[in-house]
Amino acid sequence: MARIVQKYGGTSVGTVERIQHVAKRIEQAQRKGEELVVVVSAMGKSTDQLLQLANELTDNPTKREMDMLLSTGEQVTISLLTMALQQRGLEAISFTGWQAGIQTDSHHGNAQIAHIDTVRMEAELRLGKVVIVAGFQGLSEDAQITTLGRGGSDTTAVALAAALDAERCEIYTDVTGVYTTDPRYVKTARKLHSISYDEMLEMAQLGAGVLHPRAVEFAKNYDVALLVASSMVEEEGTLIEEEVSMEKGLIVRGIAFENDVTKVTVAGLPNEMNTLAKLFSTLSRHFINVDIIVQNETDAEHVTISFTVTQSTLKDTLVALEKAQNDLKYENVQYETGLAKVSIVGSGMVSNPGVAAQMFDVLAEEGIAIKMVSTSEIKVSTVVSEDDMVLAVEALHEAFKLAEELVEPAV
Amino acid sequence: MARIVQKYGGTSVGTVERIQHVAKRIEQAQRKGEELVVVVSAMGKSTDQLLQLANELTDNPTKREMDMLLSTGEQVTISLLTMALQQRGLEAISFTGWQAGIQTDSHHGNAQIAHIDTVRMEAELRLGKVVIVAGFQGLSEDAQITTLGRGGSDTTAVALAAALDAERCEIYTDVTGVYTTDPRYVKTARKLHSISYDEMLEMAQLGAGVLHPRAVEFAKNYDVALLVASSMVEEEGTLIEEEVSMEKGLIVRGIAFENDVTKVTVAGLPNEMNTLAKLFSTLSRHFINVDIIVQNETDAEHVTISFTVTQSTLKDTLVALEKAQNDLKYENVQYETGLAKVSIVGSGMVSNPGVAAQMFDVLAEEGIAIKMVSTSEIKVSTVVSEDDMVLAVEALHEAFKLAEELVEPAV
Repeated sequence: MARIVQKYGGTSVGTVERIQHVAKRIEQAQRKGEELVVVVSAMGKSTDQLLQLANELTDNPTKREMDMLLSTGEQVTISLLTMALQQRGLEAISFTGWQAGIQTDSHHGNAQIAHIDTVRMEAELRLGKVVIVAGFQGLSEDAQITTLGRGGSDTTAVALAAALDAERCEIYTDVTGVYTTDPRYVKTARKLHSISYDEMLEMAQLGAGVLHPRAVEFAKNYDVALLVASSMVEEEGTLIEEEVSMEKGLIVRGIAFENDVTKVTVAGLPNEMNTLAKLFSTLSRHFINVDIIVQNETDAEHVTISFTVTQSTLKDTLVALEKAQNDLKYENVQYETGLAKVSIVGSGMVSNPGVAAQMFDVLAEEGIAIKMVSTSEIKVSTVVSEDDMVLAVEALHEAFKLAEELVEPAV
Repeated sequence: MARIVQKYGGTSVGTVERIQHVAKRIEQAQRKGEELVVVVSAMGKSTDQLLQLANELTDNPTKREMDMLLSTGEQVTISLLTMALQQRGLEAISFTGWQAGIQTDSHHGNAQIAHIDTVRMEAELRLGKVVIVAGFQGLSEDAQITTLGRGGSDTTAVALAAALDAERCEIYTDVTGVYTTDPRYVKTARKLHSISYDEMLEMAQLGAGVLHPRAVEFAKNYDVALLVASSMVEEEGTLIEEEVSMEKGLIVRGIAFENDVTKVTVAGLPNEMNTLAKLFSTLSRHFINVDIIVQNETDAEHVTISFTVTQSTLKDTLVALEKAQNDLKYENVQYETGLAKVSIVGSGMVSNPGVAAQMFDVLAEEGIAIKMVSTSEIKVSTVVSEDDMVLAVEALHEAFKLAEELVEPAV
């Protein structure tokens, strides 16, 4: 009997009708002989409604109480879905995060799963029940209710799949799979049959928005096969696993992009061993997330460092830098807003040094100025003007022949 | 430092504004130097909304899943109230039923509190925090979330007061206290300064509707002083405790009444030792709650037994009796609907045998036919026509001089 963990997001369980639809899908899976653990999020707008209540009471709620409040959202969904399954004659039982044995650290609002004690779930599965688990939540060592923060329900599903030694973790969402690029921008975007963890990680981190990077990382670390598919449409999804059935010839597997990129340049920093460390620990202390980092030696005594932040953290960044002027001893700070990041992603790139060059060529031909470059083993990222973003993506999608399916998938 | 348990019901926390009002009251109590544990119910209509969602999915939800669903209601309130307190600068922390250590049996939907482990609450109280606890819920021995059923939040508050050895349990509600009778029916109804547990129990069970009998029983058993007062109006409430500051001369303390009473008469039962037991265990097996029971010997071989049920259980009652005809061997069953129960309550009655006679006199003078009588040490109940109910209550309220405050209260 194949053990499967399924996950349905907030949109997929947003109404009573959709919960019934999910119940029907679960029944079908069970008929196929699958042993099922199902993770669900809070119903569509319920989290927003709870947030609004909190906002009417305080402009600075404590994170512990926010976790207490928001964790009720999934608890409502698990009980309703379980009732819907029982109404269809299935044996089912719901578990809150703590009842499912999900132990986390105590970072309220952004907790990490530390351990999953599967005893209760295993006992119910042995009785032939479908186990419905509240995503996004757990219990800290001192028995406080925690939430996992963004992408939390995906992470719950993957972690459960790992802990329960499930054959596969199926993430059902409002998209039908992972595409070569965002189909809302590029008409010829094509759904991928399969993709590796690292590629998915780069796609996810670069804003592909299907799966949260944390969940992909977790899946990679514990070797959990992930399926991303639609909860609404009956259509083959995208399988994410280590051994990708090679779609040969496709060095570049996808184009990821995101706007709201701001470039900050700190010029004339002393060229010393610890300059980089001092700069970014300053930013880290102010909770500023930095994305791309580029360093240039200006002369023997000075370096210039550029990095990207989101528009919303620019002000904090500038304040943090100004405060640290005495310590960092830079000459000046400049910034440029209205930028975008466009990246090509693919495992094959590591052995194909010409790919980056080809990318720069394509952008140059379109007359697109490249403001920053950053590379990893499986991606090349460029920062361009926001106005050039879609043009860049379209040109790259065509140049790397992503619309064409070169071989039939082996799946 | 006086340790107090306060309880606010669903209406008192029904909106964000009311939650803020409750927070203000808690702040005032803390300023007086009180050490506070506060029990709250779900916000006004939230339980109904959750029930409606469940009803859209199934017409026969399992009780375990209903408990899972409904227990979210109080969890929302505890977090919001705690945020409101923190916004006012108070140290506060919220606990679900299980976090507060409330252990129950496993009767989902109608669980009984078995034990309260106060360790977590005590620790937070020592830190000077106000502890906010979700009423109506607990955890069974096998770690299932349970709800306590009707009156559950009152019971939670009383049980916490007992377990925490609190000086007093204050039940804040939408009435200003316990009255000699329902002020909506009788203009001269007077609020009582104090009342004994037994009197309150009779008042509550007879439909006075202020406090659930379970909570009063619990308070009596553990000798918890109870205060019933309004959460909206600043007005002295009614204190319920063992040693009542005697309002002398008041043998009858209150008139309780309820309509929706149906009388069922089973005639010609064999006059045997186990007839009563057989009849009522039959009804009990069908989950029919019986109120007043009256037995008459018709002759040496036969007895006639009458009892009252609510209109809604009449059909089930008749079916249950018909099924048991062979076993019970009665001659016939009759019933009369449209009746009401009117009772006088007072601890002084036990030593005043003339009180019942006076009651019958008063009703006779008003031309009210008495269909059934039942007495206990501190109450006399009569069943009359529903049409006579208000007249009977008014006449008794006047005859027993309940509108007059005979002595100043010693409180």
